[in-house]
Amino acid sequence: MSGVRAGLRAFASDNYAGVHPDVWAAMVDADRDHAVSYGADPVTELLQERVRETFGPEAFGVPVFTGTAANVLALQAMVPPWGSVVASSVAHVRHDEGGAPERIGRFPVITVDVPDGRLTPEALAPLLHRDGAVHASQPAVVELAQSTELGTVYTPEQVRAVTDAAHAAGLSVHMDGARLSNAAAALGVPLRAFTTDAGVDVLSYGGTKNGGMGAEMVVVLRPEAVAAAALIGPSDLPGGDPTSARERAEKALAYLRKSSMQLASKHRYLAAQLLALLTDDLGVALAGRANLMARTLAEGAERMAGVQVVQPVEANAVFAALDPAAADLLRGDFPFYDWDPAAGVVRWMTSWDTTEQDVAAFLAALDRALTTARPHHGAQPDA
Amino acid sequence: MSGVRAGLRAFASDNYAGVHPDVWAAMVDADRDHAVSYGADPVTELLQERVRETFGPEAFGVPVFTGTAANVLALQAMVPPWGSVVASSVAHVRHDEGGAPERIGRFPVITVDVPDGRLTPEALAPLLHRDGAVHASQPAVVELAQSTELGTVYTPEQVRAVTDAAHAAGLSVHMDGARLSNAAAALGVPLRAFTTDAGVDVLSYGGTKNGGMGAEMVVVLRPEAVAAAALIGPSDLPGGDPTSARERAEKALAYLRKSSMQLASKHRYLAAQLLALLTDDLGVALAGRANLMARTLAEGAERMAGVQVVQPVEANAVFAALDPAAADLLRGDFPFYDWDPAAGVVRWMTSWDTTEQDVAAFLAALDRALTTARPHHGAQPDA
Amino acid sequence: MSGVRAGLRAFASDNYAGVHPDVWAAMVDADRDHAVSYGADPVTELLQERVRETFGPEAFGVPVFTGTAANVLALQAMVPPWGSVVASSVAHVRHDEGGAPERIGRFPVITVDVPDGRLTPEALAPLLHRDGAVHASQPAVVELAQSTELGTVYTPEQVRAVTDAAHAAGLSVHMDGARLSNAAAALGVPLRAFTTDAGVDVLSYGGTKNGGMGAEMVVVLRPEAVAAAALIGPSDLPGGDPTSARERAEKALAYLRKSSMQLASKHRYLAAQLLALLTDDLGVALAGRANLMARTLAEGAERMAGVQVVQPVEANAVFAALDPAAADLLRGDFPFYDWDPAAGVVRWMTSWDTTEQDVAAFLAALDRALTTARPHHGAQPDA
Amino acid sequence: MSGVRAGLRAFASDNYAGVHPDVWAAMVDADRDHAVSYGADPVTELLQERVRETFGPEAFGVPVFTGTAANVLALQAMVPPWGSVVASSVAHVRHDEGGAPERIGRFPVITVDVPDGRLTPEALAPLLHRDGAVHASQPAVVELAQSTELGTVYTPEQVRAVTDAAHAAGLSVHMDGARLSNAAAALGVPLRAFTTDAGVDVLSYGGTKNGGMGAEMVVVLRPEAVAAAALIGPSDLPGGDPTSARERAEKALAYLRKSSMQLASKHRYLAAQLLALLTDDLGVALAGRANLMARTLAEGAERMAGVQVVQPVEANAVFAALDPAAADLLRGDFPFYDWDPAAGVVRWMTSWDTTEQDVAAFLAALDRALTTARPHHGAQPDA
Repeated sequence: MSGVRAGLRAFASDNYAGVHPDVWAAMVDADRDHAVSYGADPVTELLQERVRETFGPEAFGVPVFTGTAANVLALQAMVPPWGSVVASSVAHVRHDEGGAPERIGRFPVITVDVPDGRLTPEALAPLLHRDGAVHASQPAVVELAQSTELGTVYTPEQVRAVTDAAHAAGLSVHMDGARLSNAAAALGVPLRAFTTDAGVDVLSYGGTKNGGMGAEMVVVLRPEAVAAAALIGPSDLPGGDPTSARERAEKALAYLRKSSMQLASKHRYLAAQLLALLTDDLGVALAGRANLMARTLAEGAERMAGVQVVQPVEANAVFAALDPAAADLLRGDFPFYDWDPAAGVVRWMTSWDTTEQDVAAFLAALDRALTTARPHHGAQPDA
Repeated sequence: MSGVRAGLRAFASDNYAGVHPDVWAAMVDADRDHAVSYGADPVTELLQERVRETFGPEAFGVPVFTGTAANVLALQAMVPPWGSVVASSVAHVRHDEGGAPERIGRFPVITVDVPDGRLTPEALAPLLHRDGAVHASQPAVVELAQSTELGTVYTPEQVRAVTDAAHAAGLSVHMDGARLSNAAAALGVPLRAFTTDAGVDVLSYGGTKNGGMGAEMVVVLRPEAVAAAALIGPSDLPGGDPTSARERAEKALAYLRKSSMQLASKHRYLAAQLLALLTDDLGVALAGRANLMARTLAEGAERMAGVQVVQPVEANAVFAALDPAAADLLRGDFPFYDWDPAAGVVRWMTSWDTTEQDVAAFLAALDRALTTARPHHGAQPDA
Repeated sequence: MSGVRAGLRAFASDNYAGVHPDVWAAMVDADRDHAVSYGADPVTELLQERVRETFGPEAFGVPVFTGTAANVLALQAMVPPWGSVVASSVAHVRHDEGGAPERIGRFPVITVDVPDGRLTPEALAPLLHRDGAVHASQPAVVELAQSTELGTVYTPEQVRAVTDAAHAAGLSVHMDGARLSNAAAALGVPLRAFTTDAGVDVLSYGGTKNGGMGAEMVVVLRPEAVAAAALIGPSDLPGGDPTSARERAEKALAYLRKSSMQLASKHRYLAAQLLALLTDDLGVALAGRANLMARTLAEGAERMAGVQVVQPVEANAVFAALDPAAADLLRGDFPFYDWDPAAGVVRWMTSWDTTEQDVAAFLAALDRALTTARPHHGAQPDA
Repeated sequence: MSGVRAGLRAFASDNYAGVHPDVWAAMVDADRDHAVSYGADPVTELLQERVRETFGPEAFGVPVFTGTAANVLALQAMVPPWGSVVASSVAHVRHDEGGAPERIGRFPVITVDVPDGRLTPEALAPLLHRDGAVHASQPAVVELAQSTELGTVYTPEQVRAVTDAAHAAGLSVHMDGARLSNAAAALGVPLRAFTTDAGVDVLSYGGTKNGGMGAEMVVVLRPEAVAAAALIGPSDLPGGDPTSARERAEKALAYLRKSSMQLASKHRYLAAQLLALLTDDLGVALAGRANLMARTLAEGAERMAGVQVVQPVEANAVFAALDPAAADLLRGDFPFYDWDPAAGVVRWMTSWDTTEQDVAAFLAALDRALTTARPHHGAQPDA
């Protein structure tokens, strides 16, 4: 009766999956009696403890509803009115946020081509110069995604190289972590190893694709990187001056979250999802499962003639080139997206709930599609 | 372990309450297998059917996360770049949206004083004039809240008087319905009687305070009132021209929802909440319960010396004047907000889950607080 | 041949007048050889000296093109992203800036009624409270106009009362001085007496209506009031840290002026106009002439039956109530604006070039109009 | 006394030059008596006639203060809230507008590399696709500069190729004509040959660098390309419906100009400048002079060892590669800008008032600088 298509199993996006049972349980557990709204509730308090345990004692989280919102909220807090954001040319902030960066944050996004989605100090170098003149926007923040939009993963050292270059040039660093847990699972290191400990200033932590229902979070790792915090005055804070950089950053984010229409009234349910994913490394475990399924899928596909995997499969995405006719046949069974139609490249994604049976069924369908799409090819040798 | 304070029962806001079991059930029911993301799922399709049944065949819904978001999304779709919004001086859009109207919608909000929160043609008259000159913003939309921020309710005839005045002056009408169901319950008429049938063009339908977890919805009742729809070109729509006003309005809202950071990826869970509330009038029934508890509370309070109910109690809010010392004592047991500290007016709100025991406990605590706050008064007669 | 209507003399606005010869001379004087663009020219340097002489050693000027631009540039530099502006209900920033405050500055404007256009601490009191909560915008700046939109003038003490109240509440003060010189002429005190010395933080200095061609200027009197200055980092300033509050404020304004599209390339001509007006008190002298003509006009008009001057005539505007039929007749000879059509109130303005003959001709026309509009009144005595 | 450095002659920018005598004369001619403000004056009326004569009967002009303002006003009128602008990677709108496109227009700017500043259908092809999905901004306008930021000039056929490609994809075309007259002079054709007649929809006409004091103008050539015109309703226009596309576009631009803080009150002086430049082809003649001086300079420079002119010199800019040490020596005599420091490329610009003596002096200084910078090179043969 609910109308969800019975049995749909897709490789289109990790946001086609449902909610993990432990996340449900956490939400139900939060559903007792009344709770103070807007984040002054005990579940949110527990979440903040977990954020500090995970990312370090200075960290604090700001739950929001979507990945676009997390990125844009973080960036608008970090970028002064004369600043711009530097990102890769495949960045989510450029292609998948419907203009929200410019409409809400009002900052230019300047992009640079990188072959595998990973920024490097060399690629960034020409874009980091701040001339201090008024004619151009001043580069203010480097934005990198972990795992990247191309399913690759930065090592902690690669992140550090970027953050060092950015900081040396006077810029801050924001990490788009819509799939942060997938990176942790791929690297086999704690989340803080390639975030706090690698010089990232602010990140977006993704819960939705990781088994949540709809919960993302800005996590501030270094409060000094929140430029807007400098605008917080004594009358914005209950205790008045002097206040810590962290208190100022929290307040600035609180104001900006509200005016960005990202303040949940029944905040406990948002907090509960994130709390569950950060508890006992649930999120990383789920992401590890998705990553494994992506590798399995990629290995199976690569064994087939006519499929070429075109990016390293380090997280839960497989970018593959194949005959468009075969792709179209396959799509009938399993929805997925084109990535670069001109090059015949498509994207297949796994999620926390992808099973080995799903992958096997997909590979079987892929095999059929490839065969059907080239009947004459098989006959060619005889011709 | 969850951290929610065991046993908290508050009269601070209807967003302190949890989620109604039927809403939970609808969300769980939606949690099967995979579903296409971003609203192309069957639950959302069912929701749209329900919206049409409820509000009329031309209506369509645009689910979002918060009440502020619903209002600002609706208004930015209705107001041209040179337009302004006219509202009451107690409007949520003025006082409780953290500047989102101006920051996201970029339109001025012009307010007029009305004693009980209800706009009238007479109060509006001086603000509706469009002079067509470039010096001032042109009034474009009248915003009214139903039920109002002061807990009062417009009759269908009162709504119609406002919409007629607005339309005659060339303006459209948006209704902030964060507590729309409370108005329906109070009036004992269907939702469309004081919306679609009373000339409202676009409304915000509130699910969160009505038993939901976090779900609100812009509902377009008259697509022609969506100014931004005029900017939709053939290439924005799959089938190209010609298209209906409704298709154009849907597309304009879709674009604006995304860039307003209100597009849920796992959309089915948002839709499920709203669907549950609109099914078998669940939302109106829950609101009716809250309204009844508010009247019970108000009647009990009015019987006590030292309490004056200062607004008609038509929905689920009670505005009362009492000795601040008594209010502070009471607050120790039951959190609530001051409304007008200078006048000693506070706001008490009931919610879908307020029980008769809650009200009785509250009234008992109120009685104690009043007594404690005026020990000498009791002694006065002997003096 | 130029097409300017020969002989038009109007009382519609002081921006109908031409350019004073001394202003022309200054512009021509600046027109030698090449000059570095964007304000790094010697005329601008001289202007800054003059600004310091006029308004105090901490002051600096930021020339822009229009009065709306000066106000909005100043305010956006002063208001944090969560702040609002408090102004009188007849404020230019509300009625005559076409929504630029909200569209460019993105801050709400909250207004209060005051009978003669002059804010008072009493009127402001309910609007100055900063609660530090995220739900409402925090009042950040009080905006007052000098002379006011109603042709009245604050005494230095009245200004001080407002700035004291604002500062005590944690707000800054911006003065809209589109007609600042008229106030100085009316008060007979130097410009700084009711600006710098009366606690004003930032002002808009108006040159256009004062005999200029098109030149206004933000003047920062107290750099600490420029909130955006807190966002200036070492890489924004050539010499790096540490820097003075003033240098930071200058840089913040420079960036914001550019992105507000108010940076003149051939800046010397803008600077020359302002320099001329600030030299030997030319601007104040010209404004004094306009004020005198307004008083003359008002006195003449008040002597006629059927005309009532409804605001004190302290600067160069006369607000008068008269029979609309007479007003319409008069308008045929001398264009002017209605102010409050419902009350039959019109506005007559004088300018630096208004002559006694102009006023005499106007009064004669007014007399004729009044007589013509009430033929029967003349006949009444015989009836 | 005025402070302009006596005798400064520079090749830094064409905005270092003063005002042409005929432009002065036109401004003085406009300075008679009173004139209605905000553009309802006879000089502006004459200007509109001249615009129609120059660009075609459907054209109308919207004078503004700066080139950035002209571009951003035009683009915000053309781009819907979900649209983006496609431009070359050296575009002024990307590098020299201080973020105004994103801050005021709120649209993303997407760039493509082209070697000589001229867009081509081939280069544009990957960026013109509108997918109609909400995730990415939809490309809405192609922006091209004529003459380009690199001193090259599109032929009418090259413009037509771009406009055809844009229109075929459903986009409109805006031409940044800060140096439009230089292109006309270079091509030896009327302004409309490569604008109206080549399919350009809206352009920015530059007066400031062309001998003006500070006057630019949006010129709408095809009113249907002004997207915002679709938002104009009957109450925005005095006569009410029905109205022409042109009237709606005029009104939309009028509103947007005001809220973009670009509405001059003493409008006649802005109009007079533009009128003078469009009269008897004054602007084109002045630009032709500047172009000739650039060619003379380039030819002289190219004859010197150690200088390489790296872009075709078609307008009034010379891009040259030379030893940075020589460049620095030369800069002592003649200020100019670096263009690409890594490649040792500098930009030299001529203006309407550059004389043959100026060029000769510059070349002599260049020769000295080159010689001084390479003493050892001269000595090399002996080594």
